[in-house]
Amino acid sequence: MRYLITFSYDGSKYNGYQKQPKGKTIQNEIETVLTHINGNQKVSIHASGRTDAGVHANHQKAHFDLQKEWDSDKLKSSLNSLLPPDIYIQKVELVSDEFHARFDVISKEYVYKINMGEYNPIEKDYIYQYNQPLKLVEMERALKYIEGTHNFKSFTKADAEQENYVRTIYKATLIRDRKNLQQIQIVFRGDGFMRYMVRNLVGVLIEIGSGKRKSKDILTILKAEDRTKSGKTAPACGLYLNDVFY
Amino acid sequence: MRYLITFSYDGSKYNGYQKQPKGKTIQNEIETVLTHINGNQKVSIHASGRTDAGVHANHQKAHFDLQKEWDSDKLKSSLNSLLPPDIYIQKVELVSDEFHARFDVISKEYVYKINMGEYNPIEKDYIYQYNQPLKLVEMERALKYIEGTHNFKSFTKADAEQENYVRTIYKATLIRDRKNLQQIQIVFRGDGFMRYMVRNLVGVLIEIGSGKRKSKDILTILKAEDRTKSGKTAPACGLYLNDVFY
Repeated sequence: MRYLITFSYDGSKYNGYQKQPKGKTIQNEIETVLTHINGNQKVSIHASGRTDAGVHANHQKAHFDLQKEWDSDKLKSSLNSLLPPDIYIQKVELVSDEFHARFDVISKEYVYKINMGEYNPIEKDYIYQYNQPLKLVEMERALKYIEGTHNFKSFTKADAEQENYVRTIYKATLIRDRKNLQQIQIVFRGDGFMRYMVRNLVGVLIEIGSGKRKSKDILTILKAEDRTKSGKTAPACGLYLNDVFY
Repeated sequence: MRYLITFSYDGSKYNGYQKQPKGKTIQNEIETVLTHINGNQKVSIHASGRTDAGVHANHQKAHFDLQKEWDSDKLKSSLNSLLPPDIYIQKVELVSDEFHARFDVISKEYVYKINMGEYNPIEKDYIYQYNQPLKLVEMERALKYIEGTHNFKSFTKADAEQENYVRTIYKATLIRDRKNLQQIQIVFRGDGFMRYMVRNLVGVLIEIGSGKRKSKDILTILKAEDRTKSGKTAPACGLYLNDVFY
């Protein structure tokens, strides 16, 4: 039986999503609990993709196989009763044996949160604290240049060697918080994201918002296909994997 | 020179505001840093009042004396550069030597946050997770009975012996979150609050919202002047000292 889970997590105390030789990871916590409820027979989970250390998820997805057929609600409660409070299973669905949580992804959505206002200790691990005002209209112009199909080599991890750097960004928008005008969210939806890609895009967007670059620089950077032409990687704490679509 | 500081903190990793023989406290952290910048001459701070373990502050206030005259902004930066990231000094003001951060309080405001919707691991230490819907109109009726001058003995800590249990609540209101209809905040503003008073009021309000009691029960409980007649103490994580007025 193959199951698809939708889950959220606070990434601040984890060494990323993916299993590691050392450090706590989200995958490890879930696999440990699943293996336990599977009578100690090893269960492996396959997520839509990894998230780096300190990055959060509002709706991450993963699949795994269990011999026994479980009632979805019962499986959800069992998992949540055993998982630590910073990981929460929102939904369990029975899916076909051909479904794959990574290979079948059609699109993914990320959100990046920035606070331009006064520092709030309660949000320290959950938003990027930027202490100056940003020119939001200029950032919105830059986001228009990011939308579409481009080679994003300039925005991925410098040493990430891969066959294909072309991705399509369906949506890149900036949302102003109506309650707190000093907080913004940048939303990206696309067919795929390479390592550090969202955080590197945000790094350049912040330079644009602070006046160090112009919105049109996005075009030059994309064309260069060279990581050294973009900017700093924005901190992990502001990033959320918001949703995965199949 | 007497200084008044306004500060915020994430109470989730602290054993409360007030200095204790064991465990980290907010007061201890601030006094350690102040003593350090005062050339290791002991500095004591006097807050508007304590907050219990796990309770947060949006704007707590305290005063202390320093021999040397400091520029307010410089003192603020020095303190913030030395304090842990879960405590933040928002403002430093020079005040008269007669000013007292506790004795001069005119009113205080507390906020209690409740989530009736899906559990969110990111908010686990910052909102009370209540898994059922609450009848908000019935709770609002109850809040009307709380406003005014009453003997709140039924709502304070059972063994808290004090001379006077009478307090005036100027405002007791319920705020619906416009973005997330499953989240509410209960705001209390009054001339003083005894230990556990807000959390004990919220405990009964939740019983009223869940249909276990009627809004009018507030009147009976107040009249009883007996802690056993009210309800459970609501968890610390939902409570914020929102502001202190002089």
